[in-house]
Order: sequence, then structure tokens, then C-alpha cells
Amino acid sequence: MAEKKKIGILGASGYTGAELVRLLLRHQRVEIVLLTADRRAGQKMGDVFPQFAPYELPQLVSIDSVEWATAGLDLVFCALPHATTQTVLKDLLTKAPGTRVVDLSADFRLSDPAAYAKWYGHEHHALELQKEAVYGLVEVYRRDIKKARLVANPGCYTTCAQLPLIPLLKAKAIESDEIVIDAKSGMTGAGRSAREEMLFSEVSEGFNAYGVGGHRHMSELDQEFSKAAGKEVVVSFTPHLAPMNRGIFSTIYVRGRRGKTAQDLHQILAEQYAKEPFVYVLPFGKTPHSRHVRGSNMTFIGVVQDRIEGRAIIVSTLDNLTKGASGQAVQNMNAMLGFVETLGIDQPAMFP
Amino acid sequence: MAEKKKIGILGASGYTGAELVRLLLRHQRVEIVLLTADRRAGQKMGDVFPQFAPYELPQLVSIDSVEWATAGLDLVFCALPHATTQTVLKDLLTKAPGTRVVDLSADFRLSDPAAYAKWYGHEHHALELQKEAVYGLVEVYRRDIKKARLVANPGCYTTCAQLPLIPLLKAKAIESDEIVIDAKSGMTGAGRSAREEMLFSEVSEGFNAYGVGGHRHMSELDQEFSKAAGKEVVVSFTPHLAPMNRGIFSTIYVRGRRGKTAQDLHQILAEQYAKEPFVYVLPFGKTPHSRHVRGSNMTFIGVVQDRIEGRAIIVSTLDNLTKGASGQAVQNMNAMLGFVETLGIDQPAMFP
Amino acid sequence: MAEKKKIGILGASGYTGAELVRLLLRHQRVEIVLLTADRRAGQKMGDVFPQFAPYELPQLVSIDSVEWATAGLDLVFCALPHATTQTVLKDLLTKAPGTRVVDLSADFRLSDPAAYAKWYGHEHHALELQKEAVYGLVEVYRRDIKKARLVANPGCYTTCAQLPLIPLLKAKAIESDEIVIDAKSGMTGAGRSAREEMLFSEVSEGFNAYGVGGHRHMSELDQEFSKAAGKEVVVSFTPHLAPMNRGIFSTIYVRGRRGKTAQDLHQILAEQYAKEPFVYVLPFGKTPHSRHVRGSNMTFIGVVQDRIEGRAIIVSTLDNLTKGASGQAVQNMNAMLGFVETLGIDQPAMFP
Amino acid sequence: MAEKKKIGILGASGYTGAELVRLLLRHQRVEIVLLTADRRAGQKMGDVFPQFAPYELPQLVSIDSVEWATAGLDLVFCALPHATTQTVLKDLLTKAPGTRVVDLSADFRLSDPAAYAKWYGHEHHALELQKEAVYGLVEVYRRDIKKARLVANPGCYTTCAQLPLIPLLKAKAIESDEIVIDAKSGMTGAGRSAREEMLFSEVSEGFNAYGVGGHRHMSELDQEFSKAAGKEVVVSFTPHLAPMNRGIFSTIYVRGRRGKTAQDLHQILAEQYAKEPFVYVLPFGKTPHSRHVRGSNMTFIGVVQDRIEGRAIIVSTLDNLTKGASGQAVQNMNAMLGFVETLGIDQPAMFP
Repeated sequence: MAEKKKIGILGASGYTGAELVRLLLRHQRVEIVLLTADRRAGQKMGDVFPQFAPYELPQLVSIDSVEWATAGLDLVFCALPHATTQTVLKDLLTKAPGTRVVDLSADFRLSDPAAYAKWYGHEHHALELQKEAVYGLVEVYRRDIKKARLVANPGCYTTCAQLPLIPLLKAKAIESDEIVIDAKSGMTGAGRSAREEMLFSEVSEGFNAYGVGGHRHMSELDQEFSKAAGKEVVVSFTPHLAPMNRGIFSTIYVRGRRGKTAQDLHQILAEQYAKEPFVYVLPFGKTPHSRHVRGSNMTFIGVVQDRIEGRAIIVSTLDNLTKGASGQAVQNMNAMLGFVETLGIDQPAMFP
Repeated sequence: MAEKKKIGILGASGYTGAELVRLLLRHQRVEIVLLTADRRAGQKMGDVFPQFAPYELPQLVSIDSVEWATAGLDLVFCALPHATTQTVLKDLLTKAPGTRVVDLSADFRLSDPAAYAKWYGHEHHALELQKEAVYGLVEVYRRDIKKARLVANPGCYTTCAQLPLIPLLKAKAIESDEIVIDAKSGMTGAGRSAREEMLFSEVSEGFNAYGVGGHRHMSELDQEFSKAAGKEVVVSFTPHLAPMNRGIFSTIYVRGRRGKTAQDLHQILAEQYAKEPFVYVLPFGKTPHSRHVRGSNMTFIGVVQDRIEGRAIIVSTLDNLTKGASGQAVQNMNAMLGFVETLGIDQPAMFP
Repeated sequence: MAEKKKIGILGASGYTGAELVRLLLRHQRVEIVLLTADRRAGQKMGDVFPQFAPYELPQLVSIDSVEWATAGLDLVFCALPHATTQTVLKDLLTKAPGTRVVDLSADFRLSDPAAYAKWYGHEHHALELQKEAVYGLVEVYRRDIKKARLVANPGCYTTCAQLPLIPLLKAKAIESDEIVIDAKSGMTGAGRSAREEMLFSEVSEGFNAYGVGGHRHMSELDQEFSKAAGKEVVVSFTPHLAPMNRGIFSTIYVRGRRGKTAQDLHQILAEQYAKEPFVYVLPFGKTPHSRHVRGSNMTFIGVVQDRIEGRAIIVSTLDNLTKGASGQAVQNMNAMLGFVETLGIDQPAMFP
Repeated sequence: MAEKKKIGILGASGYTGAELVRLLLRHQRVEIVLLTADRRAGQKMGDVFPQFAPYELPQLVSIDSVEWATAGLDLVFCALPHATTQTVLKDLLTKAPGTRVVDLSADFRLSDPAAYAKWYGHEHHALELQKEAVYGLVEVYRRDIKKARLVANPGCYTTCAQLPLIPLLKAKAIESDEIVIDAKSGMTGAGRSAREEMLFSEVSEGFNAYGVGGHRHMSELDQEFSKAAGKEVVVSFTPHLAPMNRGIFSTIYVRGRRGKTAQDLHQILAEQYAKEPFVYVLPFGKTPHSRHVRGSNMTFIGVVQDRIEGRAIIVSTLDNLTKGASGQAVQNMNAMLGFVETLGIDQPAMFP
């Protein structure tokens, strides 16, 4: 068997870090050799996530203690917070320029420095890398990803909205100025930070919207939708929190263009994704449940005719920690390292 | 103290029946003297809903065993299934014409026999009563309700959408052909019937849409919105199920008409509801959580400016069993029997 | 109508504070005139708990800003953290000695200074008050409570275990050295502090024990059980967390003494509680659900014969925020101020 | 690569059936060639469990339509209801005597026909097979299982209790007449049948016991515990339902024998399981969470010193659908077919 590639995970104490470990522990072609977590440095992964206690894994270390030049890493997953990421990756890629990187933060998703500065309130700290980074939606940018050194893994909300909408915008099959995306997320999307509004008793048995009217993720949608449509596209997008752990569920309201019916839209998507391993288009008129993709790398998409003529309702769902984050990151890694794209991420959803 | 009014509840073994008992047990001006539940006849209410075991309540009986003429009922809440309701109420009001009725089914909500026949697939069995029935949205039809003999209690989804939208449609402040209502419901909205898709393990930890493109509740919205707007209004409406017990949460996308801004819409609603005891409009820019109305008869409404100019996002939430069903039914009863409108339904929400 | 008594709530930003407000807002004989919350001073109660936004309530203030001597408070509920409580109440009762106090912390529950020092690791800061305080389990100490100035409201776990066990220990009907109490709690029992292990995603879809072998609440059980039995009683007690908001559920394993059968134990409890408004003993052989007491001040108790001869299984459940905290505190207040004991806390459980 | 073994699953429309499919779809040495589900015959697996829609699987057929003699099955998993199982397996093994069977029902777990008749109220319909069947707790009966034709897969509650207790009983390290097992289960343990008490709104936000004093699973515990101890052992066992999908969590109260301390008990278990791939004993004094074994085939065990001298509290947890049913069934299959025991069931738990 071929030698295993050496993998590092920066920021292993968060949920996306844990999900990476879950997936990579059983990936036949790689080996985890580095796990960082600054506040938990010196501890075992099993102290931070007890489910890993029975497995052999490297001890958690702080980022500062890593010598990039001699670390011998083939690929690094970066699951660090916004802004920190830019500094760390600049340092890493300067000292170990041959390392490949899949970055799970939002730091390298926007290719336009001006757009970045507008949405994040400061100039980008690693402009060269921003230029170099490839947007990691495999179903759209597979060819570029294979050759990329630095891949910006897309966000969970945005992956869930792009997979159904990009083929339709490219085909100019829908009106681009009447798109409404009503998105619902499970709580792991908010991370593992101890905040009052994320406590069990504040979340369970209830539902709410947040960031209404101006969520940061919109910049990523603006960029990719405009690129696909060949003109500026601005959508209405509202994120919500549902009392569940995993899942993004998007209900998307569109109007067909030049007589395109809901059935036409369905056909475009069905054809587009017929051979994609991680996108499944349901029969026309059916809509998916988030629970049926839980823990898997799948996106399920359904298209329904609205009762208002000319309008369609598209429903799209994925697991925010898998296809929405760590599973997609492994999919990117597989593409970058020349593995079979489904390796290590082909387990079916866990339902119930 | 004045004599207590004698109340019957038909269909007491469902969730809306239990919610009526919860509220009426502590209502100072009424007394529950009749509880029917055909399949549970002969049992105690505490056998069907153990939380009531410590309280004195009449034994459950079958509807057929009730002599309407001599039952001495001042008012009856009817929480029976669709269609059965028409037959039972026709019989009841023929034999005891002085009884007042609040019907919680959908049977008398549509005033147009043709609309009824279209959506329900058969002619109405009690056409005279359909004509007589008053639509029981107190905030809109208070005056008529006070004099009504038969009140059709609105549905939970529709109450949640009408309270924010009717004043805006009446004021011609929004475009009536671009309304999108994305609605989420807790599971009690689906009732207490033992169906596979309602099992805990089929529902928890997941999210889904249902009835996409053509839910029956739309007929009620069509009727009331068109009436308010003075012209035909047809909206996009998608219902979803969230893994929680109680709560309707509606995210509503609208476009202001003739330069009306989100702030203008907010002001119309704030003024409209300033004195209503059961509708609370949040400060502009804030949106409510369903958990903050749980168990109460309140509707919370928020209005936010969308980032797309001219568009606003309105969020509205209520408890489907209280303001969306039994609480609103008691509110109707209070109006019909001349009580203070908040009597018995003024408890604050139970959060957490 | 008699003038309303003036009530203060110290520590109103926690869950027990919110539950007190929920119950007192509709209590006919009292009026909330003071709400403190140090970190939220200056805010409205509706900012901290949005469900109260529609109601008129005093603004939150810091404790230091209150002049006890002139505050005119008839009774104060103290829902402050451990230790702080001692200092605050000493100050309050020195400056306003006529004020009555119901303390919801653990600070005054142990009457023995040595026991307190042992379990809490330091000497009590208000020894005189510790001596004066009456243990607030109304069903046991009603007479003393009526005359008390300072009542120590029992804990939720301990109330749930004491109500079934104290009558049995007093009657010497069970072996006192073979009692096992396996207790499960909803998350609100852990309060509203932002800690990682209390996040939704750390709690939902799982179950765990904590404090196994030596939970602090045991000292309270030791004291009351020993008093009831007339000799030292030490029980096995394990607390667990279940993924739900409200509820304590105790499964208690006992052995009958001198031939006492499970049925005998049931009869002792049924007779003891026949006239108590807030304790309901189910028919022999039946066991309660926590959901059927949710939001109410009830304790439901069931007794079952174990298949091992001579042994019985007793199941007891209550809502930790109501009978386990704020509801019992109001019950204490009602006794102290001479009101009907059920006033303001007689609403049935909210299920579903 | 060696040819894949041909596998059938009888009763594929239940949760254990779905869990088998989830695990076997990625098992390298087997291939699913038969799926039966009488009420769903003719449908696709993806109609019954939409998560499998993207995968190639045989269509569901009725059991009666299968020709056992010519089906060419190497091994069959039987996930049929009690009693039906006996008839079906008798027929199958008569017509295709070379087929191996792992039965997930309770039908072949009791080796004593009299014990069976007592607990199930009728004589066993396949007495010869009952005699032949091997009890499938791999950690105890591995050697026999490897040679067995018919393996009776243990129950979820009983696996969770046996793994910690059997080594202690064998070592005569605990008193065998003072064992209390307080067990909590997730809802999938109750299966997929549409019953009112299993509805989301009847289950969520609450906790309850059931079958108190005499649950059928006890017969299995009696048999295995008595065998291990070399004398009759009868334990107190109470099952409960927690509002979660997956997980068995057992809190076990024991007394050490002849001076054995909690630490001694811990050491016995740690040594016993040091090399077992699916049992992990936590460091002394720590207790596991059910969420940390979710979706994995692991059992986590913790041992703590009770504050009562001589007593210990043992906590044991597993996923009822994996190690408690289908994962253990695959573990049995691996042993029977000579595969590496961890094949296909070595994925880490999915948390969060």
C-alpha cells in the first residue's frame, strides 16, 4: 500500500476539528500527525472530545510550538477563527511552501480585496494568498482545486444555496433579482463557544432568526452568484436556528425566466448532478429532510411547482459539519492529493 | 360572584382539547360540565392526559350520548376532525339553538361555498351555518364576534401570517403579488394521531418542509388577504416542521409599495396593535423567538429592513396551541360571553 | 380588595428569577416592586427575558443601589448565588428587620454550622441567621414556616426525594441503610451560566451522570432523612442530566421493614398526602412522567412492587423550576403572608 | 480481493434494519443481496429510508416470496418481531441448512425452554433451534460464536448491563443479591411502530420509567448473571425513556464482596477489557456520556466510589442501535465468517 500522507489539523478542539478527526481516522490514505488547540495544548484529544479516548492520536499542541519547515506535513486543515487564520497561514506557507492547505474559515473565500474589506471592516492581512486561493466548491471548481495549494472551503449556508442555484443561474433559467433564500441551521453551525444564547435551555423547544437583513455569509453568495449569472446578483437571505445539532435546510423561492417551469429547473439540476457522488436530486415534486443527510457528505435537492404560475420552490439540505464543512474539506483534500474523491467520506447518513 | 357559565368541549382527547382544559380550569367565570371523546368514552380525563388526574373534571362521554336540548350548555368548544364537525354542529344547533359555539376545525372558516368545495373536494354539509359563521380573528372581527353564535376559530399558520399582513394589506403598504411566507411549526400542530412520520425518532434532530406548493391552509389566507387588500391576493406559502412541541414562526418577505420603507411598515403595525393585549410589536429591527411566547396567548411581531432596497422581512410568532388554537378560542369565548377579553389567558409565556 | 404586598426579587436574571416573575405577575395579592440583577442593572426585564417585554415591571437595579431600610418591602425572594446570599441577607435583615425572606439558595438549608463548614469548605458568614432559618418544605414544616422570617427553600433534587421518603422514614416502614436514589434532572437545574458543557450541542441527544459519589445536595438529604428517621441516614444518590428543560425524576429503590410491602408503603403515602394540594399519589403500580407536572407546582409519586420480594420502587417527579424552586418559594410566601396556599400557583401542568 | 459474502436482511424497514444497511454498505467483504419487509414489499429501500435513495440496493420483497433453498445466502440477519422469528428461521434453516443466521430478536436468547415459556406465555415454536443457538455476546462467547450457525444477538439493555457486571460476578467481587440497575434508553429502542406514546410531543421535554418491576429483558439478565455467578442472581432493574434517539445508559449500584473496593472493581474491568476493541474502561472515578458512543460500536464503562463505604457506582453506556443491536450483529457476523472483528464497525462515534 502507498505511504500515507501526513495531515495536520489546526484548531482541533472545535466541532469542525472533531468532525475532521472522525472522518480522517478511517481514511485509508492519510494519517493525522498534528493536532493544535491553543487553549487545550498539552491535553489529549480524548480530554476535549471523549469519543476519541480509545483511539491513538497525537497530543494537542499550541500553534506557536510547531516548526512548519520541519513538520513534514503534506496537507493542513485550518479550522481557526477568522483573522487569526490569515496570520497563521501566511507564516506556514512562507516557511513550508510545499504544504497544501484547506482552510475552513471565511478568510480566503472572497477573491476581491475590496469586498473583503467592506464586509470584514479591515484590509486582508495576506493579500497574496487571497489572490492565490481557490474557492473550494468541488462541484464547480474541481479542475482548479486539483492543482491548488490553498483552497478556501465554502461555508455551510452558502454551499447549501449554491449547489441548487448556480446551475440555474448559469443556465439563465431563473430571474436573478427575485431570489429569496430562507435558511435554517442546526446549532453546531454556531461553534463550541460558551455563549448564553447557545445554552440548551435557550435553544431547545424554540425557533428564531438571526442576523436578519445582513448576514456576513451574503458576501460569499454575492460573489459566486454574480459570477455564475454574469451580472450582479443580490438575494434576500435569512438564517435561522432550529433546535437540532446538525443540518442546513434552505427553502428557496424563485421565478422561472422566459417560460422556464419548475419542471425545467428540475431537469437542469438532475442533469447537472447525475454523476456527482455527493449531490442527489429527488424526483420532481419531492422535498428532502435534513435528517436524511445527517453525518453524510450528501446534499439532497428537491424542486416543487409553486401554486403561483411561473414560480418554483427549491429545497436543499446538507449536514453543516460534513458537506457544509469538514466532509467537503476532505473532498477537497481528496481532489488535491489525487485520491478517489469519495475516499473516507462515503458513509451513508445516520438516521435515526 | 356571578354564576359560572357552563362549557362543553367536544373532542377533549386531542392536544387542543387538553389546552382548553388547561386554560379553562383556572378561568373564574366558567365551569367545564361536558367533555366528549368518542374512543375514550367512559374514561377520566386523567387517563388520557395524566396532568389532569388531580383535578375534578367530568368523565369523558361519546358525542352520541349527549342530549343537546337538555344539556344546559352556554357555550361549546368544538375540537373535532374536519367534516365530522359539520354534522355534529348542525345537529347541536338544531336541538339547542341558544348554545354558542367556537369551532376549532377548519370547517367554517371559508365563507364561500365554492371555495370550500374546491379545497375540500365535496360540498359543505351545513351550508346555512357556513353562512352564519363569523371568522374568529378577534383583532379584526371583534365587533361581529361579540354577537356571533358560531365562531370559526382561525388556524395557527393563518393567524400568525394574518396578524402582521392584514394591516399592511389594508393600508396598501405592500405589493400584494410578491409576498413569500416561510412558516415553521412545532409538532403539536400535527395533532395527536399515531402516525409513523410523527414519531420522536422521525422528528427530532431534523427539519423538513411538507405540503410544499399547495397546503390547504392557503384557502384561508387567500380569503382573508383578498378581503383586506380589496383584490385577489395569492401568496407563496411553505409550511415546515421543526423539532419542538409548540410554536409557529413565520418569516415573511415583502416589498413596500409606493416608497413605503420597512420602517413605515413597522409603524403601521406598531400603531395598529398599540392597545391590543395579545399582539406585541418589537422595536424596529428586532425579531422574536418562538420560545418567548410559549404557553401564552401572545403574538410577537418584528420588522427588519432587508439589504435589498424597498424590501422588508417580517417575523411573526405565536404558540400554535394557545393563540393559534385554544387560547384564541377562549379569547373568542370571552368576547362572545361579554367577559374581559384577557380573562384566563393572561399568563406570561413559560420560558425556559 | 386588600392592598397588595410589596415583593422584591434579588437575582432576577436567572431562570428561578424568571419563574418567580412568571408566577407573581398573575398573583392577585402581591406586586413586584424590586428586581435586582447586578450585571444587567439599568436594563429592562424584557431585555433579559423577552417574554416579559409586554408587561410592566420595575427596571433591573444592582443590589448595592437598594436602600433596604426605606424600600418598603414586605417579602424578598433571594435567588442569588451561594455565599453572596449570606452577606446580602445579613445586611438586608439588619437594616430592614421586618422584611420576610424566602431564600432559594442552599445557604440556609443546613441548620448545623459544622455540617455547613464540612460541605462548603468555609464557616458560615451569617451564623445567627442560619440558626433562625426555617427549612421550607411546606408539607413537613408548614406550622413553623407561617411564623418564620427567613425560610430556606429546599433544593429541587431534595424536594423530589423527601416528599416520598420522609413519611416512610417517619413511619419506620423502610430500611434506612439500603436506599438508592437515582435522580434525573432537566438542564434548567444547572442555571443560566454560559459554560461549554451546557451548550445545546453538548447536551441534546445524550445522557450523563455528574457529581457521582458525592454531590453537595446530599448534605440536605442527610439532615432531613436523619431527622425523620431519628437516626443517621446516608443514602446512595446519583444525579444525571437529561436533554430536556424542566423536570426532576427520581427512581428510588427501597426495602420494606418488618414485613412492610410495597402496597403498605403506597398506603402510607396516599394517606399522608390525601389533602395536600401539591402532592398527588398515583394508584398503586403506576408511575408518573415528568412532562405531566411541567410548569405546575405538583409532585407526582408512584409506588411499584419490585420483582424481588420485600423491595419496592418509588418514582417521584416535579418541575425543578416550580415545585423544585420558584413555585415552592411562592408556596412558602403564601404560608408566611397568610394567603391561601395555592394562590398564584394552581395552574395545571403544560403538556404537551 | 476475495469474493464478497452474500447477505440477507429480514425485516429491513425497522430501525435495526436501517442500521444494518448503514454499516454493511461500507463493509468490504459483504454484499447485501436480499432485503425483506412485508408491508413495504415492492418498494425501494429509499422509499422507506430516504437516506439510502442514492445507493444501489435490492428492492424490498416479502418473506414468503423468497426461495431459501436457491437464494444463495451466506448469512442472514433476522430483525423480525418476536414469535414470527421462530417460524421463519425454522423454515429457512430447514430449506437452506448451510445459511448462517444472526437473530436480533429475543426469540433465541433464553436457552431454557421453561424460562422461555414462563416469560413469553407460550412454548417455543423451534425447540431444536433454541437448543442450538449461541448467545451472541462476543466478549464472553467469542469461541462458540465463531463456530455457530445460529447466533442470538443480545438485547441493548442487557448488553449494557452484562459487559460491566459479568466479569465482576465471575470474579465473585460483588454481592450478587444487592445489585440495582437503573437503565435509561433513547427512543429508537422502542422501534418504529406508530404508537401514541412514541409521538414526538409525547416524548420530548420529559422523562419516564416503564415496565417498572417486571420488564421482559430481565429473563436474559437472570440467565447470564446466574451463569456468571454460578448461582441464582436476581437484580432490581428499571428501564426508562429519555428524550433522545440513541443510547443506553446504565447506572449500576453494587456492594463489593469480601473487602473489594470500587478501585478493585475498576481494575478487574480494566484488565478484562484491555484488549477488547469495543469496550473502553475510563480512568477510575470518571463516568461516560451516552453521546460519546453515538453511532459507534463502543461500550464505555466508568467506576466510581460511592460515599457509602464498600459500595460502588458503575456507569455503562452504548448506542442501542449499534453495539446494542446492529453493530453487535455485524461483530457476530465478522466472527462467524472469519473476518477481522472490527471490519465495517470501526467508525468513531458521531458527536456532536
